[in-house]
This record gives sequence, structure tokens and C-alpha cells, in this order.
Amino acid sequence: MLRNYKMTVSYDGTRYNGWQKQKNTETTIQGKLEQILFRLTGKEIPVQGAGRTDAGVHALGQVANFRLDTNLFEDELLSYFNEYLPDDIAVLSLKTASERFHSRLSAVGKIYCYRMYTGNAKPVFDRRYMWKPDEIPDAERMRSAASFLVGRHDFKSFCGNRHMNKSTVRKLDRITIEEAGGGRELRLTFEGEGFLQNMVRILTGTLFECGIGEREPEEMTGILEALERSRAGQMAPAKGLTLMEVRY
Amino acid sequence: MLRNYKMTVSYDGTRYNGWQKQKNTETTIQGKLEQILFRLTGKEIPVQGAGRTDAGVHALGQVANFRLDTNLFEDELLSYFNEYLPDDIAVLSLKTASERFHSRLSAVGKIYCYRMYTGNAKPVFDRRYMWKPDEIPDAERMRSAASFLVGRHDFKSFCGNRHMNKSTVRKLDRITIEEAGGGRELRLTFEGEGFLQNMVRILTGTLFECGIGEREPEEMTGILEALERSRAGQMAPAKGLTLMEVRY
Repeated sequence: MLRNYKMTVSYDGTRYNGWQKQKNTETTIQGKLEQILFRLTGKEIPVQGAGRTDAGVHALGQVANFRLDTNLFEDELLSYFNEYLPDDIAVLSLKTASERFHSRLSAVGKIYCYRMYTGNAKPVFDRRYMWKPDEIPDAERMRSAASFLVGRHDFKSFCGNRHMNKSTVRKLDRITIEEAGGGRELRLTFEGEGFLQNMVRILTGTLFECGIGEREPEEMTGILEALERSRAGQMAPAKGLTLMEVRY
Repeated sequence: MLRNYKMTVSYDGTRYNGWQKQKNTETTIQGKLEQILFRLTGKEIPVQGAGRTDAGVHALGQVANFRLDTNLFEDELLSYFNEYLPDDIAVLSLKTASERFHSRLSAVGKIYCYRMYTGNAKPVFDRRYMWKPDEIPDAERMRSAASFLVGRHDFKSFCGNRHMNKSTVRKLDRITIEEAGGGRELRLTFEGEGFLQNMVRILTGTLFECGIGEREPEEMTGILEALERSRAGQMAPAKGLTLMEVRY
């Protein structure tokens, strides 16, 4: 019987060209997962992800679904994935879902976390998962800027896709900026119903520019109103970003 | 003026052949640190470490000292090290110490941590810092075995150096075995005045064998009394071990 499976996937994105499949299946997360299903069934079975993470972006709790007819139990299928996936991709859970479940369309919210190293040494153990900027930003200035960005807005200025022809209006529920790691880390958490391409990294880069005094927090309103990518700040490096959770 | 400097060093040991310098300075932590001092002064300045960590073993708080005559301030010297060291080695702090301070001989205690992955997936983000055994050990059996090992004993059976001709008596103050990472990790912490070569890894391997039922906790007394390496268990893989702290 053809079942719809929902799985939670964790990956270190360092070696990959993002989530979305390309010609070379070896270089994307979707490609690697579909390779396992091809190995199991000899068929090409599409794996649909909730978020198309950029090249170099990580995931703690990406969610994906696929349709499969198999005699394997859920935990056997989970073990099969983990046995054949490389060390930097793991399936954390796998369950049968309702026929209508779609990882992306059924999602009601996503949480992303951006980690910035702010110590005076180097983040040895987390060097693949944190960005170490040249200057240390002021967290209070960043929080002040973030307060202008929360809410339902047209985020076109923060969208990396210049040819986006669908709505760029999104509701951003929360941005929290916390010190962590004994004062050596600044952790930005973004929670919202959905995010545009590169949006979290452009938001982070713009907040960072406020934090180091290159911009004023009050400028955020004008950037939003401009609907122009060039008005927002730089895109923060991919390595600092992790998709933490998808909510349904 | 020649000063004695004390520094705390953190490293991801994955790429290295351990702490202690060998002919090829590129492959050891001590070699890398001495390269930086050679770059600064043009002289060979020995860097003395508190513990000679094995190949593949990590450190969060290794301590080392060296004697140097420089006009640089402490924070400038710290920055110099971090600028020229690779991404997987960082100097966390650097201070002038008393003339008599010796990182190894002045130490009164060390803390090591061994991390074992016990989930049913894979430790994606910490895969270089945890061992994933094929079987999940029982923590309570391991704690019971550990209770026989704590105290002042001759640990010759747990010493990896067969040609050790100094005393193999050590005082092991504490072994704690805790579940962490939402039940996906078992963390063994060893605290003692000093440790023999490979001792923490052989202790861990032996405790693991108790945990999976291959040995009985009560066997520990006989293993200690035998003074014979072959009586103890396997040496656990290096990647799971981190030198956390050196106490003075």
C-alpha cells in the first residue's frame, strides 16, 4: 500500500549545494535522500522538503515527505536511511502521515537560528556552524532594529530572488537576539509563517550593520517601504544559519 | 624581559597526531604553537603542555606555558596566535605567570570528558566529537563498575604504555556518567590528579564492556589487582575524548 511518510532530517550543510536537487544528486540533500529511496526500490521517488535551504545552510529539524509502498516497518526504514546516508545527514524520525500531509504546504511556521561568534578567540568546535564577523555588533542596537521588522510586511527588500513573481508579503512573528556561550556568541532566532529566498541571511546582515553602527535602527521602516533589494544590507554567510524546526 | 606565559588552548584534534611534537611540526598541536612563536621571534621556543593528548583527542581547556621576551601586550600576543593558527586551534586566554609555573608539574588535577552517542540516528553536528558504538550500554551497570575504580589505585592494567617504568599509582577522584542531549548521549566525566597514557580511553572501553553485559562490574577489582594491560577492556576511540580543564 502506498503510504505518505513524514520525516525529520538533520544535516551539516557544509559540503552541500543546498536542499534542492540538481543534476548532480551527490551535492544536494534532496538528491542524497532520493538516492536512498532509489537504492531501496529501484524507482525515482520524489522527496519534498519544507524549506529549500541554501548551499552551506544547516538543518536540525528539516521536514520532508514522500510516498512509498514498502513492507518495511517505520523504524526499519529509518535505519535503512541512516545506514546508507553519509555521516553529515541523519534522519531523526520517520512516521506515516495522513494522505494529505505535504511538508511545505501544510507547514504553519518555521524557526531559523543564526549563530555569530563574538569572542576574542575562535569557535574551534562550532567553526562550521557560526559566522565570525570582523567587528562585534551591539546586541541592543540590533534588538532595536529588529523591532521594526517584526509583523506582517512586504519583505521584497529582503528577498534574494530578483525574479520573484509571487507575493513577498510574510508575517514575521519574532526575532530574538540572545547572548550565549559564556558571552562568546550572539544567537538570532527568527520565527515566522514562511521565509523568502535568502531572507533570514539578508535580515541578519542588515541587523548586523545596525549593530556595528553602519546603519540606524530607524532605517528599517524605509528599507521595508522601498521594496528594493539594494536598500537592505549584505547577506550574512550561509554557515551561521540553521533551520531549527518546522511547525504544523 | 623574559616572561613565563600561561595559555589555555582549545583544539579539534581530528586532523592532528596528538599534542606532542614530532619531526613534522604540521601534524601536532605543540608543533603548530611553536611554529607561531618561531614566526614571531625567529627562535625555537618550547611550548610545554599540561597533558599529552593522543592523536585525534580534543581539548577545550588544555594549558601550556612558554618563556618569551617580547614587547607585545598579552592581548596582542593572544591575537597573534589566533591570527596565524588554523581554524581548529584557538588560544582562549594568555597571561603572564609566575616564574615557577609549569603547566604539567604545577597541575593538581585534570578533567576529561568522553562522549558516546546513544540515539538511534547519527550525531550529525558532533560526529567528530562523539563515539557511536554499535550497542547501547546500560548506564547503571557502568556506574556500578565505575565505583570500583574511583580512589587511589595502581592503574597499570589501564596504562597503554607497556614500557612505563615510573609509578602507575594515581588517584581518581570522580567518574560521573550522565545522560545528555535529550537521551541521545552518554557523557562520562573523569576527574583525577593525573592520568596515564591512554588511561581514560581504556577506562571508558572497559566501562562500556560492562555496560553491554560483556563483563560484570565486580570484575574491576580483579583487573586493577592484575597489573596487566591485557586484563582490561578495549581502548575507546580517540574522537570521543576531550580534555576539559586543568586545575592548579
